[in-house]
Amino acid sequence: MLIIGEKINSTRKRIKEAIAARDAEYLQELAIAQAEAGADYLDINTGAFPSEEVELMEWLVGVVQDVVDVPLAIDSANPAALQAGLKLHRKPSPLINSITIEQAKFDKVLPLVKDYDAKVLALSIDDGGMTKTAEERFGVAGRLIEALCGEGIEPGRIYLDPLIQPVSVQNDFGLVALDVIRRIKQEFPEVNTACGLSNISFGLPKRRQLNKTFLIMAMAAGLDSAILDPCDNELMSTIKASDALLGRDRFCKEYIKAFR
Amino acid sequence: MLIIGEKINSTRKRIKEAIAARDAEYLQELAIAQAEAGADYLDINTGAFPSEEVELMEWLVGVVQDVVDVPLAIDSANPAALQAGLKLHRKPSPLINSITIEQAKFDKVLPLVKDYDAKVLALSIDDGGMTKTAEERFGVAGRLIEALCGEGIEPGRIYLDPLIQPVSVQNDFGLVALDVIRRIKQEFPEVNTACGLSNISFGLPKRRQLNKTFLIMAMAAGLDSAILDPCDNELMSTIKASDALLGRDRFCKEYIKAFR
Repeated sequence: MLIIGEKINSTRKRIKEAIAARDAEYLQELAIAQAEAGADYLDINTGAFPSEEVELMEWLVGVVQDVVDVPLAIDSANPAALQAGLKLHRKPSPLINSITIEQAKFDKVLPLVKDYDAKVLALSIDDGGMTKTAEERFGVAGRLIEALCGEGIEPGRIYLDPLIQPVSVQNDFGLVALDVIRRIKQEFPEVNTACGLSNISFGLPKRRQLNKTFLIMAMAAGLDSAILDPCDNELMSTIKASDALLGRDRFCKEYIKAFR
Repeated sequence: MLIIGEKINSTRKRIKEAIAARDAEYLQELAIAQAEAGADYLDINTGAFPSEEVELMEWLVGVVQDVVDVPLAIDSANPAALQAGLKLHRKPSPLINSITIEQAKFDKVLPLVKDYDAKVLALSIDDGGMTKTAEERFGVAGRLIEALCGEGIEPGRIYLDPLIQPVSVQNDFGLVALDVIRRIKQEFPEVNTACGLSNISFGLPKRRQLNKTFLIMAMAAGLDSAILDPCDNELMSTIKASDALLGRDRFCKEYIKAFR
């Protein structure tokens, strides 16, 4: 599993305050904690400051790279902010969060994927908006994958996110996401799958329990990557247990190491 | 999910002692606790006493039925003990644990399934012994299902157990079990699937965590029933969370009721 640390995201109140106060030390602590906990990428988002998003992205990418070695997931809806973060990225293989098959977005983000030889989180959404059935969602995902591959992006650089919606809104939204993950791994085995977890439990009690349970189901369906809190020990040990149960941990070595 | 309470099984040391001492009160407490915790069936096994198994089965079935209303899973490798338990079963629909497609076993247990209009736990094993791949295991399961249906047993009375083996022994044994469950639900949608959980984690640390994680994966693959400890609150709330995530809990009502 590729773990994308979710913590440094300005849509969270505490992070927004820290960025507003240019509290580099606090943000660096979060970066170090996530890297030490096993994050493979760190998400970096300054979108809560629309008028200063680009400058803040430059500042934050610098601040984080000064203390950790893991690559970053440059997270913005604004192509200029994506570019600003990518330009300052020191390691190879940054991750762009995200592209869709909405035409305007696709056209603006694609050149960045190419220019920076980036991996890309690809959300299964088109100009028709959010689809409701697994069939439709997989159709959009397939078009997005084919469009990216047609532009020369290797399938292994694509992290397809089926987009998880809350089961409290529509009872089968969990099944839809699992089904899309399973089909992508069947039809496009070289493409990676990814998702954020927390949407699944929106509006329900004990959200962490639901998120963790859904992560296990998604891993069994073929999930390769997730945006989550790597400092959540319970979640990370759940991932190790799942890897062992899914035959992804030879002789269960990693699992045994983690628990003994 | 159909929950079969696993606790009253003489292969467990404490239960064996209680049966040996005819400690009806202790065994009845276990029966009540499991029924109150939500068990749909209670497993009853006296196999640790080979020479008195039949008489003890009669005694234990009586003792348990005196205090609970849930039906029983009569659990024995000895057809005479199965028959003894079934004869005294007061409710409709006892569950027989178990039948296989080993010829001698099949021929002896099949008449009991018919005579007592029982549900039956059907283990995917034949005279060739335990298979290793999902393909082989599913092949044996398919033959067993077809043999039972050919004898007039309705598919809904069959609980097919793919037989879970430890991931510590062979890395892909978890995947094998999940794959067999998925295929049975595809090819024989009216047949139920069932399993015991604890074998999956044999030889590894933190077995309860592994068992719980595997249960979630198996439910997502289509598991209908499990033999487990219904008094394990964490496990039972995991089942409720999984049901909600898998669209089996309309408006997430049961989940919300359990947690609010």
